[in-house]
Amino acid sequence: MIIANDLETLQNSLLEIAKNGKKIALVPTMGALHTGHASLITQAKEMTDCVVVSIFVNPTQFGKNEDYSIYPRTFDDDVKLAQQSGAEIIYAPTVEDMYTNGFSTIISVGDMGKILCGKFRPSHFDGVATVVTKLLLRIMPHIAIFGMKDYQQLCVIERLVSDLDIPTEIVGAPIIREEDGLALSSRNRYLSPDERKIAPILYKTLQNTAHNLKSNNVSEILAKGIADLTEAGYKVEYLELCDSFTLAPLAEYEEGSRLLVAAWLGKTRLIDNMSVEENND
Amino acid sequence: MIIANDLETLQNSLLEIAKNGKKIALVPTMGALHTGHASLITQAKEMTDCVVVSIFVNPTQFGKNEDYSIYPRTFDDDVKLAQQSGAEIIYAPTVEDMYTNGFSTIISVGDMGKILCGKFRPSHFDGVATVVTKLLLRIMPHIAIFGMKDYQQLCVIERLVSDLDIPTEIVGAPIIREEDGLALSSRNRYLSPDERKIAPILYKTLQNTAHNLKSNNVSEILAKGIADLTEAGYKVEYLELCDSFTLAPLAEYEEGSRLLVAAWLGKTRLIDNMSVEENND
Repeated sequence: MIIANDLETLQNSLLEIAKNGKKIALVPTMGALHTGHASLITQAKEMTDCVVVSIFVNPTQFGKNEDYSIYPRTFDDDVKLAQQSGAEIIYAPTVEDMYTNGFSTIISVGDMGKILCGKFRPSHFDGVATVVTKLLLRIMPHIAIFGMKDYQQLCVIERLVSDLDIPTEIVGAPIIREEDGLALSSRNRYLSPDERKIAPILYKTLQNTAHNLKSNNVSEILAKGIADLTEAGYKVEYLELCDSFTLAPLAEYEEGSRLLVAAWLGKTRLIDNMSVEENND
Repeated sequence: MIIANDLETLQNSLLEIAKNGKKIALVPTMGALHTGHASLITQAKEMTDCVVVSIFVNPTQFGKNEDYSIYPRTFDDDVKLAQQSGAEIIYAPTVEDMYTNGFSTIISVGDMGKILCGKFRPSHFDGVATVVTKLLLRIMPHIAIFGMKDYQQLCVIERLVSDLDIPTEIVGAPIIREEDGLALSSRNRYLSPDERKIAPILYKTLQNTAHNLKSNNVSEILAKGIADLTEAGYKVEYLELCDSFTLAPLAEYEEGSRLLVAAWLGKTRLIDNMSVEENND
């Protein structure tokens, strides 16, 4: 297991691997690893010869009043879980290593980054797009795997990788859920025991909404879902039906469309999403 | 000589070259090649084994009322000059090949792209940064050479290549001038015979200004330069003294600073620049 905290150590390790003609996968994370991340690493290992896990809590994707400073940092546990899951290299750069003196370049994917979560977190996806581009170009992996829990993030990254001709295949991996349906997230640990009991209603509402959508008026069904979540104690940012590729909002149900939701439970912001067809998954 | 009009043809040719372990240089151009471009290609050939010249009049770096539609296109002559100068591959993609369906990603280098020319051509450097990133990632050259006539463009590209970790070395090549000092530019062919006679005053004003700067009040000296150009028939956009790396405007002369100018002669916009120390070059 190699732990690289700077670019030079990373690239020296990668040179050795490239020499042997091995195929490399990247699993980009912000640490606070859980079973969802482990599944990404396992899948990456099945598809390639060498898995690099990056651990970097990226300041530029957090808003001013967001949880950057309190975001969970559990480095030692992260290293163990990554190793158990099959990772060979951890890349955990410092902020100074990632953003050198005078750094000023921003990548924006346009409208796709300004809707849904982008409406409530204005420069979030610019921060994501920029740091992921840097990670991909530093590591030049054959594939990079992203969880579908952050579905808009996955779409944004697929868009920018295609638009900028970055030679990496982007793979979306299924959402891993608790037994009661709550999607795994590093932020779940913010939830109080009472909130934790309410939390799975987010998933159940997605299921109900997806089930109803096929035969009913879309805006009414979405309003019903928002009402259900509000009644349970959630403060809803959005619940929308979108094209699963462009994320453009849909006023009518179409095959291949996707439901996406973001809502606050106390001080914790949760997101989830679901393919309307596969609402029983 | 290989002429590739699409990405697949280009990348098949590059694969062959990579197999042989050859070092690749890129000379990005908008065509309408002149002796200045030839010098870039010659220099690229001296530094590497295989020179790719890209010819692409990039629509996204032209403003609405700029000269995109009338920009000179001289493809057959360009191919000849590129070949004579030592290029092995011409990459001349169509707009559709470069910007596929749904393209929406924009790269911006921040303040550096908003000053000087960026003030008068608001999204110009975003267009440049984005297309150059795409060309670099499609071709993955060891080096890419840019003429210093477009000095701000060179700084913008150095910034983004460093910020995004693009694995290409950026090389700036000296300005090539006519005997009377006019910097070579594809746009010089827009000049009428009368304008052509006046044009070299741009260079002479840079020389005079650079000479005076060391011993006098900067704002006065720049104002004098603008007055000289105006009297000669130029409409000046800017004449500024800048840090040669960040391009930040300087109120006082410092070692390593650079003079940059943009001015219109009739319907032709000309730019030029000069290191204050090397004002006799």
